Amino acid sequence: MNPPEITIAITAEFYDLDPMNIVWHGNYVKFFEAARCAFLDKIDFSYAHMAENHYSFPVVKMNVKYIRPVRFRQKILVTARLVDAENFLRFKFFVKSEDGELLTIGDISQICVDLRSRETLFTIPQIFRDHLHRVFPEA
Amino acid sequence: MNPPEITIAITAEFYDLDPMNIVWHGNYVKFFEAARCAFLDKIDFSYAHMAENHYSFPVVKMNVKYIRPVRFRQKILVTARLVDAENFLRFKFFVKSEDGELLTIGDISQICVDLRSRETLFTIPQIFRDHLHRVFPEA
Amino acid sequence: MNPPEITIAITAEFYDLDPMNIVWHGNYVKFFEAARCAFLDKIDFSYAHMAENHYSFPVVKMNVKYIRPVRFRQKILVTARLVDAENFLRFKFFVKSEDGELLTIGDISQICVDLRSRETLFTIPQIFRDHLHRVFPEA
Amino acid sequence: MNPPEITIAITAEFYDLDPMNIVWHGNYVKFFEAARCAFLDKIDFSYAHMAENHYSFPVVKMNVKYIRPVRFRQKILVTARLVDAENFLRFKFFVKSEDGELLTIGDISQICVDLRSRETLFTIPQIFRDHLHRVFPEA
Repeated sequence: MNPPEITIAITAEFYDLDPMNIVWHGNYVKFFEAARCAFLDKIDFSYAHMAENHYSFPVVKMNVKYIRPVRFRQKILVTARLVDAENFLRFKFFVKSEDGELLTIGDISQICVDLRSRETLFTIPQIFRDHLHRVFPEA
Repeated sequence: MNPPEITIAITAEFYDLDPMNIVWHGNYVKFFEAARCAFLDKIDFSYAHMAENHYSFPVVKMNVKYIRPVRFRQKILVTARLVDAENFLRFKFFVKSEDGELLTIGDISQICVDLRSRETLFTIPQIFRDHLHRVFPEA
Repeated sequence: MNPPEITIAITAEFYDLDPMNIVWHGNYVKFFEAARCAFLDKIDFSYAHMAENHYSFPVVKMNVKYIRPVRFRQKILVTARLVDAENFLRFKFFVKSEDGELLTIGDISQICVDLRSRETLFTIPQIFRDHLHRVFPEA
Repeated sequence: MNPPEITIAITAEFYDLDPMNIVWHGNYVKFFEAARCAFLDKIDFSYAHMAENHYSFPVVKMNVKYIRPVRFRQKILVTARLVDAENFLRFKFFVKSEDGELLTIGDISQICVDLRSRETLFTIPQIFRDHLHRVFPEA
């Protein structure tokens, strides 16, 4: 089994913190994005490839649940897992401490837009799934 | 009727944009926060008051739906409406264009933590509701 | 006299703060940018106009002096003053409290790049100065 | 020789970019901060230690020169080098591409404030230099 996911390590920086001395809740979106882009790199379908193929994948929905705070210089592990690539791209995110404690979960949904016609496509293009299946045959 | 809400005007800045030339989806969290803090100012219960009263209100949940993008130097109207102050603080957010088109909606839930005992309170403290009712008697 | 400058009001938000409870030093760059873009709007030569005219104005130098901190929900006045439009665009910035106390000063220099040839121009294009002089004849 | 410096690797993320498809000039301050905090970790004198010892080190000056842009998902090497620890802390920063091309340089100066008296100290405390010399005896 080789689930379509990637895990990256991130260190919470001073500029991520708020006056409560914890990571400001809006900054987790950056952690999710870094993991999602690492995943897209892994399947070799980054934003550059999207644009070349005249596709854009705007985010249409995002949900986050905050379980435990992240502190200054804490190393966290951020997993982006692709859970749907039919009509939407849908990613789930898991932020964990180094010893495996779950800190935050989230998910985002992206639709595909054809940049030439400006129309929303209701199916994720085959080229995306081709890239995906080369690296994750079972996805 | 005087619903417990506030609307502020924000201009989308260059540093809010992403390479697609629209506001990056993570930056709406800042718009929500600015509106929420304006609301807390209005009822005279800002973060400073919270800390004085040994309370903290960490965000435990956030949901965002993106309907239409916001562009460079676009003026947007961001409404924060308090919809629950019993066991959680729960705010709904509405981002609209100047001509009233709905662009983004969101909501966040905050719990109350007593900073002395580090314990989560399962009821929003009376002092918050006192501040609220002075400005919004029907809330 | 009508010096080529603009002053905007900004409120320091929760997400601008660091754990010392003051605006994080890197966030002043955003304040400068908001004032600079307001100035470019005023002379009707925004980034959109630049791009239409195939010009880009990358920042090549930035200096900031921090005199006094800015605190949560503090209203500040940010002035962007154009001090050179010959070979560079050079702006000076002044951040003041509402009662006129100087808090931060800064300056940035931008060169002009022709987006077609990718070449740096060593003179700011006449079209920029035309826009400037319509609003600021003495500049 | 063991100069008092550290080099960290950073990947430029989507949220670091501006509509010109390059890292927005204000975001280099984050890269500098990450490298500076890594340096302070290395000499075991992080913000937590500072606060325990009742010291704060606010930034009073920052200068940046932008030489070449950084692009999406580009890996950069950011060096923070301590060049003065007498009356100020002064760091120089060098941002390079993976093949050693210099992209950005910068420097910041920090003063020391005693958090009990709120007074500025005109000498960096001995405890900082003790921590420094344990790791960098020649500094």
